[in-house]
Amino acid sequence: MREKKHVLTLAALMLALFLLNACRRSSSEDTPHRVVRIAELEIDPAQLESYKVLLREEIESSIRVEPGVLTLYAVSLKDNPAQIRIFETYADVAAYNSHLQTPHFQKYKTGTQGMVKSLRLIETDPILLGVQRR
Amino acid sequence: MREKKHVLTLAALMLALFLLNACRRSSSEDTPHRVVRIAELEIDPAQLESYKVLLREEIESSIRVEPGVLTLYAVSLKDNPAQIRIFETYADVAAYNSHLQTPHFQKYKTGTQGMVKSLRLIETDPILLGVQRR
Repeated sequence: MREKKHVLTLAALMLALFLLNACRRSSSEDTPHRVVRIAELEIDPAQLESYKVLLREEIESSIRVEPGVLTLYAVSLKDNPAQIRIFETYADVAAYNSHLQTPHFQKYKTGTQGMVKSLRLIETDPILLGVQRR
Repeated sequence: MREKKHVLTLAALMLALFLLNACRRSSSEDTPHRVVRIAELEIDPAQLESYKVLLREEIESSIRVEPGVLTLYAVSLKDNPAQIRIFETYADVAAYNSHLQTPHFQKYKTGTQGMVKSLRLIETDPILLGVQRR
């Protein structure tokens, strides 16, 4: 009985240390299947705040319910805030295609139609996606 | 004595669950102090492969030794591979300034001087930096 408890304690501690290590490691990943692209958008300045509300909502939903949506980093340019850049990373093509079919993406797409003056989608090849995991 | 072991086992299990949760949560972070910018570079096509070697080395070192360097996502454009984009995120201005002083950054900067035909640094304001943590 005593030995059992020892083993259980040890196992739990090892699990804790393993997870701690998994959380803290940093990584620079080689990522052969990832879909990585940059969206460049120009928004009607009069509708910029409404656009941002819809964009934030779409990003939050995607990250919450789609494990294959890895990053949706949305920024506006300091010297021209109506210019938006989104750095998009998907686990693979299937994750990207499935993303396009989701209700939250469709809602964003329809809702922002009259706000987007131009949209350029730039397909890219990752060189190295360095990210801190600490 | 038995109670002590119970407590220890329970504590270790709780720690494990806490870390598991910390690892698995997804997040869309509000990030008031972050420095986020996009570097747009054009590289001499004849020196592109040498440039990529130096860039990879610089990213790996930065992520490994600088906790305040959060992302260095480097990609090349599919339809024009000599065009490079780097999505850079730093914890704050101090982390960014300290990055510029590191030996690995200085090595990259000096080593690639004759390879970079143009460099544009675009300062941005984050709207939402959505990232999957699973």
